Amino acid sequence: MAHIKIKKDIPGIRSLVNFRPETGKPLYALVQSLLRGVSSLTEAERELIAAYVSNRNDCTFCASSHAAAARYVYGEDKYLVDQVLEDMQQSAIGDKMKALLRIAGKVQLLGNKVLPEDIDAARAVGADDREIHDTVLIAATFCMFNRYVDGLASLTPKSKKTYETMGRHMVDNGYIFSYKVGMEL
Amino acid sequence: MAHIKIKKDIPGIRSLVNFRPETGKPLYALVQSLLRGVSSLTEAERELIAAYVSNRNDCTFCASSHAAAARYVYGEDKYLVDQVLEDMQQSAIGDKMKALLRIAGKVQLLGNKVLPEDIDAARAVGADDREIHDTVLIAATFCMFNRYVDGLASLTPKSKKTYETMGRHMVDNGYIFSYKVGMEL
Repeated sequence: MAHIKIKKDIPGIRSLVNFRPETGKPLYALVQSLLRGVSSLTEAERELIAAYVSNRNDCTFCASSHAAAARYVYGEDKYLVDQVLEDMQQSAIGDKMKALLRIAGKVQLLGNKVLPEDIDAARAVGADDREIHDTVLIAATFCMFNRYVDGLASLTPKSKKTYETMGRHMVDNGYIFSYKVGMEL
Repeated sequence: MAHIKIKKDIPGIRSLVNFRPETGKPLYALVQSLLRGVSSLTEAERELIAAYVSNRNDCTFCASSHAAAARYVYGEDKYLVDQVLEDMQQSAIGDKMKALLRIAGKVQLLGNKVLPEDIDAARAVGADDREIHDTVLIAATFCMFNRYVDGLASLTPKSKKTYETMGRHMVDNGYIFSYKVGMEL
């Protein structure tokens, strides 16, 4: 049961945005810009960073939904998502993504854990400033969402199918649409 | 030196928003709504939650600027800010704020650390759902800002006077104004 009185049967972030639309609107605008806006990182890569950080923060709702979104966009390469969540270092994901995920993992611990050598390592395999920036901000943003969703004990669905549908919806319609749906509930 | 090429001599979050305005805009809108929007928590109380969490995350820039803003609004009660940052449990802050800060401290660790008894304890001293919600989201939001600012090693001024000026500015002009200034740099 959630810690505050929110509408029943609405999962995760959506119930919270429905409770407090004034803060929900910029939250959805932020995630839309970060995960769907112009970027040289693919949508799949950005969803994977979100899932990776959420998984490290033990946030089942965010990890499951963003992993589902990442699997949907990776298509036949979707096995990479599960490999990264299980053991990123040993996964078959490319070197640039590995270096960026290492930075995301440091951000998940704390900002000042990111060292110049982590940045140099990412640059050495082709990451540019904008990609490093976006990786850090995606990681930081999910450290927020994870704490928001779990800190108020919002509903975490259990069925894998529910997350598959959610992930597909997040990719096909984007996050601004999710906000609108949340407001109509 | 910052980890990415951003404009020199611009402190903290402002330099990052200048680097990437698309994400900066919703970030400032979020903090404006949370810390300046309608709430039964005072601006001083909300700034104090932000400073408390930032201090626990070792983020000197956010802790110093939001502590300065809190001191400015608390006025003659500003000693409370330093007491809370030093030892919240032993501070002279009221029981409701103590219970909310305990929740914020749990959120700083991880969302699932917040237990029903933490919420019950806050309710028992008068906190309502909206205040509990806002406390959790302010704490979560600063877990993001702290990681963003430090994860990219943006400029952290050292002088106390600089933070005093910044804090006053954040209170007198709000965060939307700060965004506009950042964009004009």
